[in-house]
Amino acid sequence: MQSTLNLSGQLLIGQRRIAGNAGTFHAINPATGDTLAPAFSVADAAQVDLAASLAQQAFDTYRETSGEQRANFLEKIADGIEALDMALLERTMAETALPLARLQGERGRTTGQLRMFAEVARNGLWQTPVVDRELPERQPMRRPDMRTRLIPLGPVAMFGASNFPLAFSVAGGDTAAALAAGCPVIVKAHPSHPGTSEAVAAVIQAAAKECGLPEGVFSMLAGPGNEVGQQLVSHPAVQAVAFTGSRVGGLALSRLAQQRTQPIPVYAEMSAINPVFVLPQALAKRASAIATGFVDSLVMGAGQFCTNPGVVLGIGGADWDTFCAAVATAADKRPAGTLLNAGIHRAYVAGVARVSSVTGVELVAQGQKSDGSCAAQVSVFLVDAETFMAAPALHEEVFGPCSLLVRCRDLLQMRAVAEQLEGQLTATLQLEPADEADARQLLPVLERKAGRLLVNGFPTGVEVAHAMVHGGPFPATSDSRGTSVGSRAIERFLRPVCYQDFPTALLPLALKDGQSDHATPPA
Amino acid sequence: MQSTLNLSGQLLIGQRRIAGNAGTFHAINPATGDTLAPAFSVADAAQVDLAASLAQQAFDTYRETSGEQRANFLEKIADGIEALDMALLERTMAETALPLARLQGERGRTTGQLRMFAEVARNGLWQTPVVDRELPERQPMRRPDMRTRLIPLGPVAMFGASNFPLAFSVAGGDTAAALAAGCPVIVKAHPSHPGTSEAVAAVIQAAAKECGLPEGVFSMLAGPGNEVGQQLVSHPAVQAVAFTGSRVGGLALSRLAQQRTQPIPVYAEMSAINPVFVLPQALAKRASAIATGFVDSLVMGAGQFCTNPGVVLGIGGADWDTFCAAVATAADKRPAGTLLNAGIHRAYVAGVARVSSVTGVELVAQGQKSDGSCAAQVSVFLVDAETFMAAPALHEEVFGPCSLLVRCRDLLQMRAVAEQLEGQLTATLQLEPADEADARQLLPVLERKAGRLLVNGFPTGVEVAHAMVHGGPFPATSDSRGTSVGSRAIERFLRPVCYQDFPTALLPLALKDGQSDHATPPA
Repeated sequence: MQSTLNLSGQLLIGQRRIAGNAGTFHAINPATGDTLAPAFSVADAAQVDLAASLAQQAFDTYRETSGEQRANFLEKIADGIEALDMALLERTMAETALPLARLQGERGRTTGQLRMFAEVARNGLWQTPVVDRELPERQPMRRPDMRTRLIPLGPVAMFGASNFPLAFSVAGGDTAAALAAGCPVIVKAHPSHPGTSEAVAAVIQAAAKECGLPEGVFSMLAGPGNEVGQQLVSHPAVQAVAFTGSRVGGLALSRLAQQRTQPIPVYAEMSAINPVFVLPQALAKRASAIATGFVDSLVMGAGQFCTNPGVVLGIGGADWDTFCAAVATAADKRPAGTLLNAGIHRAYVAGVARVSSVTGVELVAQGQKSDGSCAAQVSVFLVDAETFMAAPALHEEVFGPCSLLVRCRDLLQMRAVAEQLEGQLTATLQLEPADEADARQLLPVLERKAGRLLVNGFPTGVEVAHAMVHGGPFPATSDSRGTSVGSRAIERFLRPVCYQDFPTALLPLALKDGQSDHATPPA
Repeated sequence: MQSTLNLSGQLLIGQRRIAGNAGTFHAINPATGDTLAPAFSVADAAQVDLAASLAQQAFDTYRETSGEQRANFLEKIADGIEALDMALLERTMAETALPLARLQGERGRTTGQLRMFAEVARNGLWQTPVVDRELPERQPMRRPDMRTRLIPLGPVAMFGASNFPLAFSVAGGDTAAALAAGCPVIVKAHPSHPGTSEAVAAVIQAAAKECGLPEGVFSMLAGPGNEVGQQLVSHPAVQAVAFTGSRVGGLALSRLAQQRTQPIPVYAEMSAINPVFVLPQALAKRASAIATGFVDSLVMGAGQFCTNPGVVLGIGGADWDTFCAAVATAADKRPAGTLLNAGIHRAYVAGVARVSSVTGVELVAQGQKSDGSCAAQVSVFLVDAETFMAAPALHEEVFGPCSLLVRCRDLLQMRAVAEQLEGQLTATLQLEPADEADARQLLPVLERKAGRLLVNGFPTGVEVAHAMVHGGPFPATSDSRGTSVGSRAIERFLRPVCYQDFPTALLPLALKDGQSDHATPPA
């Protein structure tokens, strides 16, 4: 398997392959606990500096490549990932214990994202040109000619996520968006899937070479701890950070970015419990179907989704009891899942214990047990709204297939719970037409709390689309103004520059007369 | 004068006028040193909490007002400011020592901004609706209907600036942009012009009442020190901060905002030296005209503009010497200006001393002296590029009519200086057609360094327009992704929310079918 991918265990810095100078680490198969070959080497500070300096050197050239050039680059990356075929997926399965069908789907999502951002780069609308032409006769003085476009921020440090080894990792959405914007990318590979990371990084490295791009446009660094990432975020050449992972990790990077001489934006997607509100008529009509849909959503990918439904709220009564019983039935049948690594497994066991130890929390359902390494038993608990509101521990995400059913007294209390929640990636309403008046009571709160609101669906399954928002108020993310999925993700890596009274010869192409039908005032 | 404005010295919290519980302070006439009546009272923590809580209560109602309602509100504010007529301007003159013509111009800019944001609110395009319709037949599963709009962040804490007592103060650009976006605003008035602030705040208070808006949509707090601002930025209800002022002040607020349980965005416009690059052919052909234009720009408003040209770079030789001599001639004639307050005056004197104490710095020109309170003598210094690059003290803004001419050896060295500069609001090129090749060498650096690039102009004079960018990389601002002037300023107060599979009845108006011609994918 490794031989097919030709994994070297080295760092990919620009067009070079270099053994890291700060030791080695190995991938572990979470399903078996086995150590996987080869050894992966760890970057030292000088190697982080090399990658960041190359990115800085590449920036002015790369950011002025045409949309067509960037599109070709992104499409070659997508093609290259597909060409790795089963060799890649087998390695990823071994490193993550995620099943083949899931990884095939995730690969399609990854290449789809790359091709979507190729289109975004090609059409150039992300520059959002705005032109205010000269008014030579204006009194008391002429108005100058002003033209604005968005330009990329600079080199981006990108942290791969454990739970999407392809779609939120080396060539994932953040990388695709940053490269489309014109930002060089330095990836800190996630230590849970270093082989997958190296194989995908090699595809990007080759695509950069084929496209004749400056070598610093992409590098991949590796390391099992926090040092490499800290050095990267602190490096003066780095101008933005993209991260998907834990709240602790995201907050640490945000703090570090703020402590720099020049603070930089951090887009950290961190933590959410994605509440699902089941309104009375929906509960009356569809208790069983909603219960099954909820459990399906909960256990998907062993519950390791940022959008996993971690809390379901309804109003107490016979319909609610029916719903809880249906959840128990649906969850009891579910097999244990294998979590991504030993750290996530430890955190899951501790999280379930934390929830169950709160007085007033009852166990509703448990899935099947397993003795497997990193095995996670599906766990669903029940609590009343008073207890939930009084226990901050219950508001924290438990990453894995654990969820909490919250019984509210009435709609007013349901709204009070919503108001007390922290920021979320998603909030879901299960409703029937007769519930719409109740929904209107909740919606203003939910709009303030979440980046995406769903009706009669479940939050797992994040479409890659222009209208997608995968983001939300703190602590769902560190910056509610952005999304890390969908074409709007490119906006995070841009800033406006105004060109005043520029001669046509010096204007950027997108701002020359006749270059864009969109060069009109926005208001 | 005060009787015409009926200044009470009280806080305006929602629809109330309340005496502050934390003492009093007075405005000082900077030209005379005289204390101005009345005494202004200082908010205590409970009064800050009242203003923030009212803003929070108002938010859900205010953010769902129509564009027409918000436009009417903003237009009434503009009308109300005009109705105060000379009573307002006389008070502002007394508080700031700014001349009448300047304040008349600034008032026009302020009402113009309010009316521009009324149009922005009215047309609603700032919501940038994006619609991805359902694809019911898609395999392996249907694509849901997804619709995204931008919604306001929440209550905004706005800090008035000393140097624009109307246009960057109580009803200035930040307030207009935030109110247009649907954010309630809590102003911390600048203690240099509390009477101006109260008079304008009373206009906003009355307009809110006339428009039937919830009272928390606007409040004005006052205080001479940092406490009120710190309490405001730390208040959980506040969701964003807008600030124009010193680097020290902006950094302190940014740190405070990051230390909150929920960190929030801070838009601080802080510090810039706005380099002007005079290229060789322009120097040869227009040395004298450029010198005069530069000195005019430097002394305007006693040099108290964020976009004041604090450093001018050229290549040494006979033309450069001609230019320096012309600057000396132009500056020697200039009268002293009166600075805005005693603190700014102290900082100016210290800043000029700091510059002149660097070995290698020569005095080129000084304007006329004055014994007046807060008087600032125009000061222009000369230094070679090596010395400039080796002396970080010379890269710091001196707020007032002080500037530095930097003699470079050649274009390469000029580019090296540009590369070493901190982030700037503006960078200016003086050029002739034959300089364009040289300009191309500088532009990639300048695009990375500044928010606005000008050709053959001077950076003072910031148009209120759709294409304006008044922003730039740190430390020009704390967030290079925004502008505080022009219609794009509204973007700072918005975040996206996606509505997935919503029934039409529950969709926000802007996202219903047929409501917007702009509800199309951006790519």
